[in-house]
Formats: sequence, structure tokens, C-alpha cells
Amino acid sequence: MMVGSTVPAEHLDRVLELYGRLVTETRKEPGCVRYELLQRRDDPRELMLVEEWESQEHLDAHTRTPHFVTVVGELDRLERAAPALIYNRVL
Amino acid sequence: MMVGSTVPAEHLDRVLELYGRLVTETRKEPGCVRYELLQRRDDPRELMLVEEWESQEHLDAHTRTPHFVTVVGELDRLERAAPALIYNRVL
Repeated sequence: MMVGSTVPAEHLDRVLELYGRLVTETRKEPGCVRYELLQRRDDPRELMLVEEWESQEHLDAHTRTPHFVTVVGELDRLERAAPALIYNRVL
Repeated sequence: MMVGSTVPAEHLDRVLELYGRLVTETRKEPGCVRYELLQRRDDPRELMLVEEWESQEHLDAHTRTPHFVTVVGELDRLERAAPALIYNRVL
């Protein structure tokens, strides 16, 4: 799954701090294969969260964790997230 | 780096076959950390190539390999690729 977001420059430091907390806690969750934050080289306000989960159930459980609810609630006020795109890995 | 592409349904089988060859050969290259093909769950015509390289030099060398030149030349006739987006992993 990929979730792109655009962050106003003045919120970037705080947003990266929040993602730091989210990434640390999420990687401890069962079923989390990959949880990485990327930043566009030509535009640091453009972020991309790349997630890989063992199953849809693991992903669903993730969205109910306290760290997800708290951090995403705060992120929603600081960045503009695009709709999540769900991919299957084929190769 | 991420490269999205849209493939007309009638070319999808052939395009996946070409990517199969590209992925197999590319993963043998020095400096290739990750080279994966994803397909949108809600629209199989939407592909995303996710690449991670140890350095820009490794990526540059990749684009000069015979398999890259041959396969991408054929892919260009069958799919519509978006501009490559280059990211740094920050978390």
C-alpha cells in the first residue's frame, strides 16, 4: 500500500517527528513486513508511506492501534494525504 | 525510485512477461537493493516499479545494460510510463 502526502514546509519537521513515532511503533506490530517513509528528492514536501502487510487483517488491526489513531489524527491536521493506493506485488 | 505505468488490457500479458525478464536480470546487478513490480488491486492496468539502488552510479549503470535497453524499448511501445519519481528513504 502507498499513501502519498503533501506537507506545508512549515509543518515538515513536526510531521517527520510524528512519522518517526508511527514507524517505530508500527514495525513492532504483527504482520508488518515493511513500513517506510520516503521523501521526494526534488520536493521534500512530498512524502510517500510504503507499507507491506502479511494480510488485510493485519492492516485492519494496525488502523485500530492507539499509535495509529493518535498520530494519524494529528497528521491529518498538518498534511494533505492522497487516497491510499493498494497494490499486489506481482514480481 | 518509482515508475508508474498504465498498460492497455490487451498488452498486459506481454508487458508482465517483459517485466519478468527485466526483474530477473536486474536483481543480479551490483547495487540493486530492491526491484519489484506492483499492480493496483482495483485496476490491474496500473503498474508500479519500485527500485532501490545503493547509489546513483549503480542506477546509471543499470540503464545501460542490454536487458534494460532491450526490454524498456519494447515496453515503451506497449505501455504509457509516467515520469520516474526519485525518493530518499527517510524512515
